[in-house]
Amino acid sequence: MIRLNAAAAGFAGAFAALVDARRESSADVTRDVAAIIAEVRARGAAAVEALTLRLDRHDLATTGWAIDRADCAAAYDALEPGLRTALDLAAARIRAYHEKQRPADSDWRDAAGVRLGARWRPVDAAGLYVPGGRAAYPSSLLMNAIPAKVAGVERLAMVTPTPDGQINPLVLAAAHLAGVDEVWRVGGAQAVAALAYGAGPIAPVDVVTGPGNAWVAEAKRQLYGVVGIDMVAGPSEIVVVADGANDPEWIAADLLSQAEHDVVTQSILFTDDAGFADAVAAAVERQLGTLATGSVARAAWEANGAIVVVPSLAEAMPLVDRLAAEHLQLAVDDPDALFARVRHAGSVFLGRHTPEAIGDYVAGPNHVLPTGRRARFASGLSVLDFMKRTSFLGLDETALAELGPATIALAEAEGLPAHARSVALRLRTNR
Amino acid sequence: MIRLNAAAAGFAGAFAALVDARRESSADVTRDVAAIIAEVRARGAAAVEALTLRLDRHDLATTGWAIDRADCAAAYDALEPGLRTALDLAAARIRAYHEKQRPADSDWRDAAGVRLGARWRPVDAAGLYVPGGRAAYPSSLLMNAIPAKVAGVERLAMVTPTPDGQINPLVLAAAHLAGVDEVWRVGGAQAVAALAYGAGPIAPVDVVTGPGNAWVAEAKRQLYGVVGIDMVAGPSEIVVVADGANDPEWIAADLLSQAEHDVVTQSILFTDDAGFADAVAAAVERQLGTLATGSVARAAWEANGAIVVVPSLAEAMPLVDRLAAEHLQLAVDDPDALFARVRHAGSVFLGRHTPEAIGDYVAGPNHVLPTGRRARFASGLSVLDFMKRTSFLGLDETALAELGPATIALAEAEGLPAHARSVALRLRTNR
Repeated sequence: MIRLNAAAAGFAGAFAALVDARRESSADVTRDVAAIIAEVRARGAAAVEALTLRLDRHDLATTGWAIDRADCAAAYDALEPGLRTALDLAAARIRAYHEKQRPADSDWRDAAGVRLGARWRPVDAAGLYVPGGRAAYPSSLLMNAIPAKVAGVERLAMVTPTPDGQINPLVLAAAHLAGVDEVWRVGGAQAVAALAYGAGPIAPVDVVTGPGNAWVAEAKRQLYGVVGIDMVAGPSEIVVVADGANDPEWIAADLLSQAEHDVVTQSILFTDDAGFADAVAAAVERQLGTLATGSVARAAWEANGAIVVVPSLAEAMPLVDRLAAEHLQLAVDDPDALFARVRHAGSVFLGRHTPEAIGDYVAGPNHVLPTGRRARFASGLSVLDFMKRTSFLGLDETALAELGPATIALAEAEGLPAHARSVALRLRTNR
Repeated sequence: MIRLNAAAAGFAGAFAALVDARRESSADVTRDVAAIIAEVRARGAAAVEALTLRLDRHDLATTGWAIDRADCAAAYDALEPGLRTALDLAAARIRAYHEKQRPADSDWRDAAGVRLGARWRPVDAAGLYVPGGRAAYPSSLLMNAIPAKVAGVERLAMVTPTPDGQINPLVLAAAHLAGVDEVWRVGGAQAVAALAYGAGPIAPVDVVTGPGNAWVAEAKRQLYGVVGIDMVAGPSEIVVVADGANDPEWIAADLLSQAEHDVVTQSILFTDDAGFADAVAAAVERQLGTLATGSVARAAWEANGAIVVVPSLAEAMPLVDRLAAEHLQLAVDDPDALFARVRHAGSVFLGRHTPEAIGDYVAGPNHVLPTGRRARFASGLSVLDFMKRTSFLGLDETALAELGPATIALAEAEGLPAHARSVALRLRTNR
């Protein structure tokens, strides 16, 4: 953890280093992934089966590729009732939030008599990657699957590795709840390639979303353009802006809720109260000792954590903007005053009673958010990621007479005579 | 050109071949581009100057990197008046259409007392690639720059190669009209890398859009994630659905307006009238003989053109959907009946008096559209490509008491105790 003081000499350089610190995986998986994609594209099901046998140690030819939807329903029914209620609440709230994202179509006629508009439609099929092992979060499944279903996607195909044949029943239960249409026990870059090109019983999809390891992320990157993807995801981060009136234990827990995900995550506190900064640092130490995920959280906090003391919270905001954080918590009495100054953030958590964890599960907004400063240009996952817009226009003879001559002039200036002719022929008849 | 009849034996296979035909460049530029990007990232301005000297044969250190905005204004003032009026009309109509795309912010409180919403903001800076030489289209500059400015982007930096120092005055005029803030005489993959990482006087941007050759497209693909990009673009295509009541000369000109762009473009006609199909084929031949762009158009038409005769136009629509065309013209009296059946198309042109060329220049909708079947999942360029959405939420003690327990249950089930604690600590105090 580094401690910075915005009023101290050398702050500008130290803060710039914090902003520019690369936490992205440097593993060079580009070539491996390219080879896997080429193999799946060329050999289809046989390639996927061979890779799964080698990497996940189970034989798809024996076990079958599909996990039955009845197994998902059974997993849901078998949930401990409190957990089932929680998952139901999360799904209902996520659905309600995303239903507000459905875009409106438009269709109007302008002063020149030109009919103009845009129409949104869902993609035909979406693929959803769900990691195996520790990172198999049912909440992530809901966050990816529900926007697709709200968009109107008719076919939602989920892939998930089942190392040694094992699968997380929580994930199956969430798949049932979210209305996933197909579940395939395939993972890794080979699963992403199978979704993009089709392989064996898996038909190609149009969009692939969902988190994964470096191989999965690189496969999505390489297949971008063959299919749509959600985004290039990197390590997670939280920025908390807090005044001295907060309980340091609460803020310490917020910082650790990010740190416990992975050793590459980043937690940063901005405060205008140096005494509060000390208290939070001490509370983090205390809580690390009693946390089951303490060793991961400690590694992340020690390597990437930061506490920045600023003269005033208003002065923190330009610094916060440079971090363009995935999660930004504004733990003050009047969060709107600070929020008005925020240009770049994935999701913002307003006030003292809005810990980021609420947004991870049940609040409603999506928890798939731009990381690694990408909130400068990217948005969280939404219904729009599963839809596309078709623009349209319609002219009658009068409107064409009005716009035709300018079109001809521009087409001729650009050296495109057939463009000009396609308009001129129609104008000539009009006379 | 191939001629298919949907009622003939073997049609399914022949049509599938048409859908799957790869027209994308197979040039393996991946490694070259990766090397250029690495060089620009490591050596900055010196790398850009060396590459420009080698590839574009002019010395940035002598000529300077910037083209003065006064030169752009002068180029605009020097335009032939008819052309200036046409460009003005195009800019005004493109602006009017894109202003309707500005997304609305939202901010509401739900039944549980949770404040929820989403807020859109422009990116700080956008980079615009403008090709040199033959493909330096002022219309493309307007189509890229105006949505950025409508989005509210404060800094719009344009890059364009000036081989041997030459630059197209039409492009400068369009840059002036569109309000481009910076013009840099740099092109190729090195220009995209300079925009992404910054180099010499070029500060980094957040989003890079605009057409380019295979090197430029690959550089954008490789830098996706460092910056946002518009999309992976491939060869252009048009699909025309026309009944026998059309003038075959008009439809032939429409098909050729796509073919004249490049030898890899594709023009496809669907009609329910075999005699009309013959007439269009004959008209294409006739028009090719009198077209200044005839050799390119002929090569494209012969290699990639197609005429498909269908029993009825309604039956054409599922086939049209499989092509997911960039441009779809519905040249019939009642285009809405057919349009209602379209799921996948970049832009649709309704009726007999709406040649696609009108959309290329002055109608208003964007002409940067998904190609190569990508309308299955992608949309045309829009204001949204230059903005990003920040979700937000705010809870008070009461709302947290309502959502907190479910959050704790899910966090514990996922093995994330610090998440649970960040909520539990706050609930405890509430009691």
